[in-house]
Amino acid sequence: MNYPEQLSTLDSSLPDETAAMIEKIIEAWSLLKTRQPLVQCITNSVATNYTANILLAAGASPAMIDNPFEAESFSSICSALSINLGTPTSEQMQAMQISAETAQRLAKPWVLDPVGYGPVLKWRSDMVDALLAFQPSVIRGNASEIGGLAGAQVESKGVDSTLDSTAVYAQAKSLLAHAECIAISGESDFILSRQLEQVVQVNGGSELQPKVTATGCALGALIAAYAAVSPVTIATIAAHVHFAIAGKLAHAQSSQVGSFNVAFIDAIFSLDADTIREHADLKFLAP
Amino acid sequence: MNYPEQLSTLDSSLPDETAAMIEKIIEAWSLLKTRQPLVQCITNSVATNYTANILLAAGASPAMIDNPFEAESFSSICSALSINLGTPTSEQMQAMQISAETAQRLAKPWVLDPVGYGPVLKWRSDMVDALLAFQPSVIRGNASEIGGLAGAQVESKGVDSTLDSTAVYAQAKSLLAHAECIAISGESDFILSRQLEQVVQVNGGSELQPKVTATGCALGALIAAYAAVSPVTIATIAAHVHFAIAGKLAHAQSSQVGSFNVAFIDAIFSLDADTIREHADLKFLAP
Amino acid sequence: MNYPEQLSTLDSSLPDETAAMIEKIIEAWSLLKTRQPLVQCITNSVATNYTANILLAAGASPAMIDNPFEAESFSSICSALSINLGTPTSEQMQAMQISAETAQRLAKPWVLDPVGYGPVLKWRSDMVDALLAFQPSVIRGNASEIGGLAGAQVESKGVDSTLDSTAVYAQAKSLLAHAECIAISGESDFILSRQLEQVVQVNGGSELQPKVTATGCALGALIAAYAAVSPVTIATIAAHVHFAIAGKLAHAQSSQVGSFNVAFIDAIFSLDADTIREHADLKFLAP
Repeated sequence: MNYPEQLSTLDSSLPDETAAMIEKIIEAWSLLKTRQPLVQCITNSVATNYTANILLAAGASPAMIDNPFEAESFSSICSALSINLGTPTSEQMQAMQISAETAQRLAKPWVLDPVGYGPVLKWRSDMVDALLAFQPSVIRGNASEIGGLAGAQVESKGVDSTLDSTAVYAQAKSLLAHAECIAISGESDFILSRQLEQVVQVNGGSELQPKVTATGCALGALIAAYAAVSPVTIATIAAHVHFAIAGKLAHAQSSQVGSFNVAFIDAIFSLDADTIREHADLKFLAP
Repeated sequence: MNYPEQLSTLDSSLPDETAAMIEKIIEAWSLLKTRQPLVQCITNSVATNYTANILLAAGASPAMIDNPFEAESFSSICSALSINLGTPTSEQMQAMQISAETAQRLAKPWVLDPVGYGPVLKWRSDMVDALLAFQPSVIRGNASEIGGLAGAQVESKGVDSTLDSTAVYAQAKSLLAHAECIAISGESDFILSRQLEQVVQVNGGSELQPKVTATGCALGALIAAYAAVSPVTIATIAAHVHFAIAGKLAHAQSSQVGSFNVAFIDAIFSLDADTIREHADLKFLAP
Repeated sequence: MNYPEQLSTLDSSLPDETAAMIEKIIEAWSLLKTRQPLVQCITNSVATNYTANILLAAGASPAMIDNPFEAESFSSICSALSINLGTPTSEQMQAMQISAETAQRLAKPWVLDPVGYGPVLKWRSDMVDALLAFQPSVIRGNASEIGGLAGAQVESKGVDSTLDSTAVYAQAKSLLAHAECIAISGESDFILSRQLEQVVQVNGGSELQPKVTATGCALGALIAAYAAVSPVTIATIAAHVHFAIAGKLAHAQSSQVGSFNVAFIDAIFSLDADTIREHADLKFLAP
């Protein structure tokens, strides 16, 4: 079953391919619950508590070690690393470099979330550029951040924040030179991988998710948690599916942001194999 | 209709005056939802997540950029700025000065929340004194902080924390030399403005609000958000009314602090014009 | 009524002894609600908001003053101090030393929570060792942290994180040379005190508590709050009983972590004398 080229943005998933991926997601989820991997998070001041609670709810063991004096020894024993540039301090910036270098050297999976990447926030953007040298396993961000980063690494295209994730994913392919997976969050999420010919589109979630702060930051850390127990591509897709299902189920519980957020954490926690099979909504898009 | 001097603490609102203000509040609320202004918050470690969630629920776009290396460029593009002295770090202190200077230079509204102002906490109090040079649009605090700040700027009066907001608002007038509005939080809130002969009293809220940390801090940021889309005086009153209504409605949902807090965020989010008209409780007090 | 040596891990409580302790806990709880003591918390970035909310719900007045420039003056006026090593910064490290020294000098109760103590996290572990010189009133941690600290102070025993709190409490006795009480958190909590021949075991809680981040950190701060209004041993036991009851009641409300956490804060807030009498579950173990 082949789709003609002009239908490339339509669903080109083979039913078997999607079903096989869902079983792999279930396996990754099960391993996350069982192994409770230790995930180091260097993250922003808005996201620390929320990220830790999301990781705990999902089954991982978070540790927010973000000082330069303990970064190397801790990155040496953790199972995965998540670096988020939301509200960096000078000490965190040093820790990021040490931990990213350590993760690369020891072949541990690590996720880079270039929050706010762009010309206005030069200090962090320069650090993001520098961190690319340590070859993150996954780069995750919204369309503006990923588009900006892709543009900056190739040529400046004046990418602005009005770009949606559909428009940016073609451009994002260039970032596969720096990372095994690129994940772009939006109304639908798009995941590019060196391992896949196709782009994976993950649907679901809720329009309330962007109304709760730090959900994207926590998603980056959850990718790291999954990557501690499964291959990077599966991990990236699994984390996005986990979030998308939780957002959908939480919205069914409440359409108010405060209650939605409580229900969202509940749904992250209560996910199981049947729920994944019933609600996972992903498509393989022709390249 | 004139009130004799001795009735000055009673309600001197003309019904038309109150009704007109409520319509202006509704207009400000509507603009906040529509324009989703970008609000820079330099705030304390307790308040970051909560403040971001309150701003998102109200319709604004928060950004917690608080490092000195990106402060100038970010303050140049944001629509309003909120500075809160709760748990300052040396880097935040530098960022506060740069951002306040930038906001003043570019005529952007900015709110100063002098948390803990007083002789015990000299480092931050000296910074608050210095920040007054950049002419905040609004200074917001509890009676102790505002009374202390007013006393320190005029003469030391040994203001202590037992002062309530009613007692302090006369004294606070002197601070209008430094800011367009002064807001004093308490069981009732009092707002003084260069634009108004009278003092505005906002009632409502819940006695549970002080049992949830960072509500005052988030209120300061919400004033900034409103000031991004409406005149400073309207913005200050609107933010207080928004909070007072949400507190009242949340308390009707739950009398336990954990559940109250969830309901409070729900109520910040679900506010609408009819709710404002039904529940806004404000008075104009004779000067 | 004497128990033979081989029954030493069984309940050796005299009914009167337990009942008398419960009345002392109730008295401590009542004083906490009435006096609302000012508690300084130098804590980690994950725990700040949660700790403040737990203290407020319990009746205390939290203040997260954690910079070295205000540490001495604030520690001089607060009623108790809580130091937590979760995510230290250089400025916090300086503040910890100043505040601990001030608390000792002025004979104010203070609690040390050596989060992550062990050879991997040397920077903080060295600081914990140094802080012992200022004689904390209480050292609180999980079995791995307390076991590690006990081992490091006596001799290195290669204590690992698989130790449970039952196994570690004998070893922890050596730490009574440094602090009046030692509290070990786990499925059951164990409290050792210079004032008690026996070890106090506190039961209750919920297996969901470890799934909510920063609960242990908040417990450390709650011990400090209780110690501001009651003797250190009573305070330590009371805080653990308060948490254990709240965890048990919250779990009866919800078995999902997000909702559980909301219910937990509600239960911290709504505790009263009857609830303590009905649900307190503590035992005195023969030494």
